[in-house]
Parts: sequence; C-alpha cells; structure tokens
Amino acid sequence: MPLYGGIEGGGTKFVCAIGTGPDDIRAESRFDTAGPERTLAQVNAFFDAHAYLGPVATVGIASFGPIDPNPRSPRFGYVTTTPKPGWAQTDLAGTVHRLLGVPVGFDTDVNVAALGEHRWGAAQGLDTFLYLTVGTGIGGGGMVNGKLIHGMMHPEMGHIRIPHDWGIDPYRGYCAYHGDCLEGLCCGPAIEERWGRAARELEASHPAWELEAEYLALGLVNLILPISPQRIIMGGGVMHQRQLFPMIRTRVQRLLNGYLQVDQVQTGIDEYLVPPALDDRAGVLGAIALAEDVSKGLAPAVGAISR
Amino acid sequence: MPLYGGIEGGGTKFVCAIGTGPDDIRAESRFDTAGPERTLAQVNAFFDAHAYLGPVATVGIASFGPIDPNPRSPRFGYVTTTPKPGWAQTDLAGTVHRLLGVPVGFDTDVNVAALGEHRWGAAQGLDTFLYLTVGTGIGGGGMVNGKLIHGMMHPEMGHIRIPHDWGIDPYRGYCAYHGDCLEGLCCGPAIEERWGRAARELEASHPAWELEAEYLALGLVNLILPISPQRIIMGGGVMHQRQLFPMIRTRVQRLLNGYLQVDQVQTGIDEYLVPPALDDRAGVLGAIALAEDVSKGLAPAVGAISR
Repeated sequence: MPLYGGIEGGGTKFVCAIGTGPDDIRAESRFDTAGPERTLAQVNAFFDAHAYLGPVATVGIASFGPIDPNPRSPRFGYVTTTPKPGWAQTDLAGTVHRLLGVPVGFDTDVNVAALGEHRWGAAQGLDTFLYLTVGTGIGGGGMVNGKLIHGMMHPEMGHIRIPHDWGIDPYRGYCAYHGDCLEGLCCGPAIEERWGRAARELEASHPAWELEAEYLALGLVNLILPISPQRIIMGGGVMHQRQLFPMIRTRVQRLLNGYLQVDQVQTGIDEYLVPPALDDRAGVLGAIALAEDVSKGLAPAVGAISR
Repeated sequence: MPLYGGIEGGGTKFVCAIGTGPDDIRAESRFDTAGPERTLAQVNAFFDAHAYLGPVATVGIASFGPIDPNPRSPRFGYVTTTPKPGWAQTDLAGTVHRLLGVPVGFDTDVNVAALGEHRWGAAQGLDTFLYLTVGTGIGGGGMVNGKLIHGMMHPEMGHIRIPHDWGIDPYRGYCAYHGDCLEGLCCGPAIEERWGRAARELEASHPAWELEAEYLALGLVNLILPISPQRIIMGGGVMHQRQLFPMIRTRVQRLLNGYLQVDQVQTGIDEYLVPPALDDRAGVLGAIALAEDVSKGLAPAVGAISR
C-alpha cells in the first residue's frame, strides 16, 4: 500500500501527517499558521524531513476557506477571499504540488473531515450526512448521494440566519459579514465576547450553554429540513463541552415538533446528533483519505493529469 | 418510444397525463383531490379512458407529502403523516400499480418538478440545484451531485426557521407545527390571514410583497449557504407575482453581503433565481420524466421487480 500525505490547513494551525489511516500514521507534526510563504516552507520541511519513510504517492489538503474546489476553474486549489492576512488568493494546492511533485487533492476543512468520518468514523455506510464544526468559526460540509457537497462552490453552513430574540440576547453577533448569523451568534469568539470569558472557562452550568444549545438547535433544524441527512456529526472546540449534546438533541426534537416522523429524530436522536468518532483528528485523517481517493482516481487533484 | 403516464398528486388537485415529454402530451386531465378512494378511481378512469392511445410502459407520481420515498421501506410509495383527511398512511403508488399493472415511480411533488426542470427546463445540465414552490404551502426539492435529494427521508425545506421581527410583523405564523417557520410566514394562506385579502388580490405595490420578498430572501440564503446550488427555481402560485423576483434577488445579494464571491450571486443573479421554464407544468411533466427513468431502470419503482 502506498503512503499518503495529509495536510489539515487551518486558520490557526497546520497539521501534517504521513500514513495510510487512523491506525497507521507514521509521522505527524503541527505548527501555528503564519503567512503563506513561511507556512508552506514548514509543510515542505515536514515532508523533506520524513523522506526516509519512503515517498508519498499523493497528498490531500483540508483547507480553511473560502476556497476554489472546482477542478475546472483556473483557480482550483486556491484559498480565495479569506480575510486572513496574506492568504487571500493563495495557490495552496498548486504550491504544495510544485514543492512535493505529487498530485494534490483539495477541499474544505469540513468536507475533508466529513470524508474522514465516512471512511473510518461516525458516517461509515451513510450516503447523506453532515459534518459541522463549532469553534473559532462555524463551518459545515458533508455528503449528499454519496459524494461531497460542492455545487456552485462549497457549503458555508455557518452563515445561515436563525431567529434571534434581542430581548433575551441583546448581543449583536460576531460575524463581520452578517452580524448575528449562526456563526455570529455562537462561534467560540461570540461566546467570549458575549459573556466576557473564554468559552472553555465557563462552567457546565453557566447559562451560556442553554443559549448556545438553543441557537445550535435552530441551526441544525435549518440543515436537517432542507438536506435530510442521515446523521450530523458535530466537532470543533466548542463541542468539547459534551453537556451540549443532550441539550441540543432535546431542543431539536422540540423545534421539529413531531413533523418528521422518522426514527432518527423521534427515538434515535442520540445516534443522530453525535461527536466525531475521530475526535479532533477528522481533518488530518480525512486529508489522508482524500489523498487515497486521488491516488485511485476518485477525486480531482492539482497535478493529477500532467504527471 | 414507449408511452409514459404522469400523475401530479397535489393536496388540492390531481393532474394525469400520458405522453413522452413537453412537446408530446397526448392526453391530460385535472380534477379536485377528494378522498383517496374516489381520487384513485378517477386516476384509474383516466388511464382506462385513454387506453386507445396504447399502453403506458410505466407511471411516475409527483406526490404531496410527507411521503415514504425509500424503496427499501415496507411503506415505499405511501403518503404518510399528512393532516389531509383520509390520506394519512395511504399506499398511493402501490394502489396505482395494482390498478394499472405497470411499475410506478414515486417521489415528492417538488423533487419530481425538479426532475422535470432538469430534463426539459431551467436546470438542464446542472448537477446541484433546487426547486422551491411557494403556494398553499412551501416545499423544496432538487438534486445534489446529479441525483434527487433523499437522505433520511426527503427535504422539507418550507419548515426552516428565519429571523422574524415581531415589531414589524406581529403575525404569529400559519404553520400548525412550527408557527412562524418560512412556510408559516409566507405561504399563500399566511399572506391572506395577515392582510385579510387573498394574495392574488393584492396589488403589485402592496407592502405585503416587500415583506414576502424579505422572508423568501432569508429562506433562500438559508438554502444557498448549506447546499451551494448552481441555480434555484421558484414556482408555485405566489411566485406568479413576477414583481417578487427582482425584489428577492436584491435582498439575497444584500443578505449575503459579498460573502460568496461567485458570479452567480454577484453579477448573474437574474439567471440564478428564476421561475420554472415549464411554468406550472413542471410537476406533471416531471412525473413523465420519472416514468421514463423507471422504464430505463434509473429510478426505483413499486412493482419494478415483480413484473
């Protein structure tokens, strides 16, 4: 079996790995995300330093966004309009391809995490499911009809609008684009700005979590109703607060109010809204899964044809 | 080319047709929806009366819902939990199969309308798009990755939640399950209850349309962001108010606020949010398209294997 390279390129940290799957990671390294030049030099150094393991056949990248994941676009492989300093219009996959000389698959961090959970985690055997991350921001990806969702571009699930009762919660929202969209109301920085303390410092009984669960449940029904997923996996730093899961499940049932007469929602919701089986490794392992798909011709890649 | 039967089974009327496509409908009839026994007898009478045209190879049904569209379910082909008197747990596709003796494809009215628009209308060549109807209720269907959306069950797009400013609009909403969900705020009966006059009687300059456009735009961004469709087709009685289209387009752009840097939203929105090319015939023509798919083994059907 060939070796694969996986890169989880996040807005705050990069994770690089070499291996073939969750039980066979031969090298792994993480470092803070700097500007693109320095960060890509570190990516290159990681693969250089581990050349003794043998060559990697292909690389997969799980990228922060927005990105261009369309293989027919001249900007396929680019991080596009991110406000992150220095990164707008960066040819991330193309640069990695030029540095490492192998085909490079490329998708959003959340689509790739969804792929990882589909291959080895909580979404095995499903054809329609979502992966949502609630952390510094809120993002979502997933599969419909057995393939990752792309369509016009890629999903940006964090920016949907939900009811916001200004009387109960006068917080104006954190999102620079939309104010009180889902991300604006309940990403980690929104929790911190609203309550004056970092989310991780708030005790489990703090009222912040009731409000967080209510907003996330509203967001979830807005994803369940249009997409009809067979399961939703919720990861990210905020979801480390495991007390949120039962609170969210109860609220989703209450909000749907018996309208969807399906076992998943009515009696099986504990298995319907779940944490990632791969924990915080869904992204980097998904990148390995993407590299495997590229090597089998199942996913598009920068440099796939010319080499 | 074989003949196909198409049935658009709506909550208020049924449309039956025999033909092969939009330019070749050899017989068509519509009648009010009564109880299931009487209605199905009329369906049977329609096909009986037109037996002289030759046999239909297969039939497609575009059904009101909720339904069970899962071919592995014992209730595949059923209308399930509808509040419509007499229709709950009706074996619609199975009965048509027993009456007509041919395989019967079965899906939601909106998924089938989407199929019709994909085959002959405004969604030709796309692999990810939505079809939304705004009328007596609000429903949505569509394709992702080239196939109709099913997943856990089928989409119920009308019941998503959107921000509702009670100060501007104190109307509590029409939906029996969710009050002020999207359908509850802007289906036809909600317009009539809020303003005291039927939607079709309100002049184009009535403030009802500003509010309607705002709510529909909020609903649309909540579909565009998670699903990333390449186009959204908006049909149904309320959308006969063509002045809504430019109003909705402007608001969708304003709500997205430049976040999605794609031509479809930025400059091409007139071709992005569009009326159905098949007008009000998307449903019945889609049913013909579904029957064609069944005859080619591309869609599941009641009675497909045993015959």
